[in-house]
Amino acid sequence: MTSLSPVSPYDNLSPVAQAAYRARGAAATLAPLPRAAKDDALLAIADALEVRTAEIVEANAKDTARAREAGTSESIVDRLTLTPERVRAIAADVRDVAALPDPVGEVVRGSTLPNGIDLRQVRVPLGVVGIIYEARPNVTVDAAALCLKSGNAVLLRGSSSAYESNTALVRVLRDAVHGAGLPADAVQLVPGESRDSVRELMRARGLVDVLIPRGGASLIKTVVEESIVPVIETGTGNCHVYVDAAADLDMAVDILINSKAQRPSVCNAAETLLVHKDIADAFLPRALDALAEAGVIVHADERVLTYADGSKATVMPATTEDWETEYLSYDIAAGVVDTLEQAVEHIRLWTSGHTEAIVTTSQQAARRFTQLVDSTTVAVNASTRFTDGGQFGFGAEIGISTQKLHARGPMGLPELTSTKYIVTGDGHVR
Amino acid sequence: MTSLSPVSPYDNLSPVAQAAYRARGAAATLAPLPRAAKDDALLAIADALEVRTAEIVEANAKDTARAREAGTSESIVDRLTLTPERVRAIAADVRDVAALPDPVGEVVRGSTLPNGIDLRQVRVPLGVVGIIYEARPNVTVDAAALCLKSGNAVLLRGSSSAYESNTALVRVLRDAVHGAGLPADAVQLVPGESRDSVRELMRARGLVDVLIPRGGASLIKTVVEESIVPVIETGTGNCHVYVDAAADLDMAVDILINSKAQRPSVCNAAETLLVHKDIADAFLPRALDALAEAGVIVHADERVLTYADGSKATVMPATTEDWETEYLSYDIAAGVVDTLEQAVEHIRLWTSGHTEAIVTTSQQAARRFTQLVDSTTVAVNASTRFTDGGQFGFGAEIGISTQKLHARGPMGLPELTSTKYIVTGDGHVR
Repeated sequence: MTSLSPVSPYDNLSPVAQAAYRARGAAATLAPLPRAAKDDALLAIADALEVRTAEIVEANAKDTARAREAGTSESIVDRLTLTPERVRAIAADVRDVAALPDPVGEVVRGSTLPNGIDLRQVRVPLGVVGIIYEARPNVTVDAAALCLKSGNAVLLRGSSSAYESNTALVRVLRDAVHGAGLPADAVQLVPGESRDSVRELMRARGLVDVLIPRGGASLIKTVVEESIVPVIETGTGNCHVYVDAAADLDMAVDILINSKAQRPSVCNAAETLLVHKDIADAFLPRALDALAEAGVIVHADERVLTYADGSKATVMPATTEDWETEYLSYDIAAGVVDTLEQAVEHIRLWTSGHTEAIVTTSQQAARRFTQLVDSTTVAVNASTRFTDGGQFGFGAEIGISTQKLHARGPMGLPELTSTKYIVTGDGHVR
Repeated sequence: MTSLSPVSPYDNLSPVAQAAYRARGAAATLAPLPRAAKDDALLAIADALEVRTAEIVEANAKDTARAREAGTSESIVDRLTLTPERVRAIAADVRDVAALPDPVGEVVRGSTLPNGIDLRQVRVPLGVVGIIYEARPNVTVDAAALCLKSGNAVLLRGSSSAYESNTALVRVLRDAVHGAGLPADAVQLVPGESRDSVRELMRARGLVDVLIPRGGASLIKTVVEESIVPVIETGTGNCHVYVDAAADLDMAVDILINSKAQRPSVCNAAETLLVHKDIADAFLPRALDALAEAGVIVHADERVLTYADGSKATVMPATTEDWETEYLSYDIAAGVVDTLEQAVEHIRLWTSGHTEAIVTTSQQAARRFTQLVDSTTVAVNASTRFTDGGQFGFGAEIGISTQKLHARGPMGLPELTSTKYIVTGDGHVR
């Protein structure tokens, strides 16, 4: 406002900070928008993705070709690949997000104070959300859709391996957002392919309200340790299955195998089995055979090792590293405990705090385990694989927070919001 | 658990990290405790503070003597001073905290999923809370009481100027906590008086769940920028009062003077006045005289300067710095705006995001201002001074968060908690 000040605290910004500053302006426009305006933009995005599929697939082909030249494994190339079918599926996901309720505007808390002031705590968007992610280009659209729905502007920093795909996708997204009458800068690709752009993003405190790293442990560790922008830590899961003395054996085998082997590459897959000594003789021989059938290698402590003979399983002695390893593969660490408390103690020592399951028919054991274990999710007689925004009925998921601040566990739309207090009086003073 | 692993990931820790590790053990004991056990400890603390007042006042005398020798100003020495009356007041505050409801265990969200799984999101303590604060030793007891009530262990890092007082207070607190059958390590003074102990605390990620800096802007900036432990930013308040074209003049003068001058040294005091041009002729002469009577110096933009002649006020031209300054003194920046939107734009540019007030009789203006301004608190026809945990009826306050993540605005007991999901099935697998 010229009459007040000719200069702004946001002059002379770096390219990344400039993008963040434009995002901040867009966020100011999005914040007061009613749900309908945001849903219209989301539906326009879904349509545009379908209409411009060829353009997207073509750009994606450049990334996959470059990846193959670089000798990338076919499994990684597959995760990078966008087919017309996959683009249609991504568009369908965007329509699902449009169908979700809008968290913004919800009155979280409200009261009339003794002095007559009306106090309301209302949900508002976070503002500018930065997502740093790897490989899969579908994250580009998912993240943008969830941020838009919750009234946030998003800064997307994908991996350089998907640069062409992300550039094409964001071009389509921005055109659609603009066409729907919303600011295109609500969705931006962070300029620059180099690591520097990530570093700049991590320094943009005041312009970026939160950074959410999605990807490998090393990426997450870097962002958590170097960012001065608040971070939501996601992902790593060293999940445990504890088979209690009072467990139903069939149920215990089913939950163990499902937790470990249904999809070993994901964060809610089990990595360690703990068995109560009183049920070890009855359970471990069956468990080892079932794990063998599922193709799982067992890294065993001394007591589990004694059950290896005569079992079909591949069993090797566990080292200390095994207790803290997130295998994400057909491997599991296994040990015998004397008590439930000893299982809890081991979990506290080694867990990443994602998900721990107990299999038991004892109400007291179930209650004690859920009270003592402090992880995002504690499962009783259920697979660790249920820790998931979709499974929890959130309709969408921006990631799974393994920290205690702001959000914990699967994050849906409400986790992409903050709140503000509105104080209404009639000239009230203190 | 020896049979599983002889070593722990927490061997060979620094003294500060060892304290944090002990706090983590204490937190594990506190987490499942029912309210009564925590309230008993709080009441034991209140009693002990009264019984051992002499010991506390004696230790405090060493701090105040040292401060006077160092030539510390009497106002600072006064804030540092503990008298028997003040100790009694602190004990009374602890009893008030005991009387507050326990946030732990509250079911925040709950549903039965389509597959029959019962899902519950339950409030749990954060775990280990680190408080880094300056001068006033009453914070030592307040913070410990709020953390204990919410089931958290606390690591207290007070200023070296209050070292003797804090040491005595924490000794009394620990004895009382232990006497009540709770682990003494639930309350610890961070070892070491040097800056290094603060640095170690900021590096203790995984052992400390959150750091809350309370004090001057430079302390907060350091912690925010250097800590890899999640931080809740508190305190700085560059608060604005906007007098709309449709304001009631008497109300506007009352709210302006109360916001600025009732207690200028606190974060919810106003630092900038913005006046709509259409009401400037009627309002500014009265406002300037009222500010003069309150002893407030006005740092004015060109248009406010034109009202200086013939007013009792001390008025000087504002520089750009004035728009971003948190004076915490009898000074205020003042400017005239052409529109409500221009006021909002100025606020967005310069506010610390604490509290902004509008004075207006227009429903549309009030609605628009509350929609567009994005600060922890937006006040309509009320003083900025109401942004306070006590005023909001929280019964207690650990600080005022000016960030958007986890907590925003005055933080009460619920803001000292996280949540965990409890998934209960009958052998459910995917």
